[in-house]
Amino acid sequence: MKAPRQPSPPWPCVAIVGVGLIGGSVGLALKARRLAGRVVGVGRTPASLEEAQQRGIVDETTTDLATGVAQADLVVVASSVSTIGPLLEAIDGAARAGTLLTDAGSTKGSIVARWERHRKARQCRFVGAHPIAGSHRRGPVAADAGLFEGRLTVVTPAKATPEQDTSQVAEFWAALGSTVFLMPPKDHDRILAATSHAPHLIAAALAAATPADITRFTAGGWRDSTRIAAGDPGLWADILLDNAVEVTRALTRVRRISDRLVAALAAGDRKTLLDLLQRAKERRDAVGS
Amino acid sequence: MKAPRQPSPPWPCVAIVGVGLIGGSVGLALKARRLAGRVVGVGRTPASLEEAQQRGIVDETTTDLATGVAQADLVVVASSVSTIGPLLEAIDGAARAGTLLTDAGSTKGSIVARWERHRKARQCRFVGAHPIAGSHRRGPVAADAGLFEGRLTVVTPAKATPEQDTSQVAEFWAALGSTVFLMPPKDHDRILAATSHAPHLIAAALAAATPADITRFTAGGWRDSTRIAAGDPGLWADILLDNAVEVTRALTRVRRISDRLVAALAAGDRKTLLDLLQRAKERRDAVGS
Repeated sequence: MKAPRQPSPPWPCVAIVGVGLIGGSVGLALKARRLAGRVVGVGRTPASLEEAQQRGIVDETTTDLATGVAQADLVVVASSVSTIGPLLEAIDGAARAGTLLTDAGSTKGSIVARWERHRKARQCRFVGAHPIAGSHRRGPVAADAGLFEGRLTVVTPAKATPEQDTSQVAEFWAALGSTVFLMPPKDHDRILAATSHAPHLIAAALAAATPADITRFTAGGWRDSTRIAAGDPGLWADILLDNAVEVTRALTRVRRISDRLVAALAAGDRKTLLDLLQRAKERRDAVGS
Repeated sequence: MKAPRQPSPPWPCVAIVGVGLIGGSVGLALKARRLAGRVVGVGRTPASLEEAQQRGIVDETTTDLATGVAQADLVVVASSVSTIGPLLEAIDGAARAGTLLTDAGSTKGSIVARWERHRKARQCRFVGAHPIAGSHRRGPVAADAGLFEGRLTVVTPAKATPEQDTSQVAEFWAALGSTVFLMPPKDHDRILAATSHAPHLIAAALAAATPADITRFTAGGWRDSTRIAAGDPGLWADILLDNAVEVTRALTRVRRISDRLVAALAAGDRKTLLDLLQRAKERRDAVGS
């Protein structure tokens, strides 16, 4: 009797560099959806890699990048944004020629530009990506096979990126459950400055400005507004610095509105205040809980 | 055979003026904890009062304030802050002499000052309060018998308030499940500007400043940060206008921190950025989820 034929998985060997919340969730989603033959976890801390293996996120682990990516058909770099550029170059020198690379960094402009600067000398194929599915939680312990379901992943080809490479990377992120959106890296960074990076800066400023001896008088509003300020300072310092110009622009737009609110308060101008609060409510209500 | 003796409830008749989220939750908590013999709901919209009665929040309802408070031992005014002062005066002219009044307004300075200005002429006894248990949800449908459990209620006696009145109002809010904190009205308004009112203004500015065509690129961070912006514009316009000076001061303190963050971004000063993000994280982590 013949065993029933198993379809071969789309990616025989996937390496994940950085097995934290995002990398770990990539591993779990690959497993749950039977998309990879073998998943190799590459990281710096053996304890974290061991935890990833115990949770079934990866099949094998190594702290040696070259070993980890040597057999890979696809490499996903899910480390902090300041480390992604250098890692992509190291992987390019260690993986087989033609290996497909993607990343999960929250900024795209500088990462893509660094790769493109020496495109002609690259052995591998890279297309940047950003699954918009972050959280203030960290590490493989927070990984979730369903993290990308119903979320957007922005895939950011450069002008010179072959269409086939873009398609393959888009298919990868779509296969994990996300809806893929293609756009140039600069557009990504401008938009995410407004929807994620500037809000983070504002939440941090609000949390830091609240004296510790009065936080007992906070309720759900303050707690919701400042929740992301609990995120990892190192990861966020990287993101904010890498996208500093757009973050500052987005913040200026928020300030323009808050200036108008403050002016309305000073003038006792209830109509302007109501108009702006109503506009804010409509914008918020449209997004859902 | 004699029926087992039922202890008489601490408040034979309580009137709730404004049966929304807070007023409705007062009613449900009074019922659940058997604290009132009879609860009368007073409101402007018959449909809302009917809903409150159907949910078992109140025993009787009326749209006539004088009728509603005539038999009350305790009256709780849980309407929007701009209406509380005038309502207290109307109740003072309609309730029995000596009736205890309290409110649930998010600001305290102007409400208490208005009452105190004519203290000698008052028939009733009033001590202001603010249960810090708001939500962006509204109406009797959102009412919850456990809303005050584990929350703080700030009770704000004036200098001339007899200690006995303060104690009785404090006991009332404590009996609903909250922990009572006594402080002067001005201190309350200064603190709440920082922990609630300025955060609301910031959340509204952030929501209003985000173009509608990019809200699809938001994730949990933006959604958390802007959640309170879905609150009722009219209620919040009242609160912000009533506490305008302190709200503006609190906002200035937040801006001072965000100015330092922006300067650090412009200078590429990772150390300052990390220090401020770390301070924000510590302040946030100390409060809990």
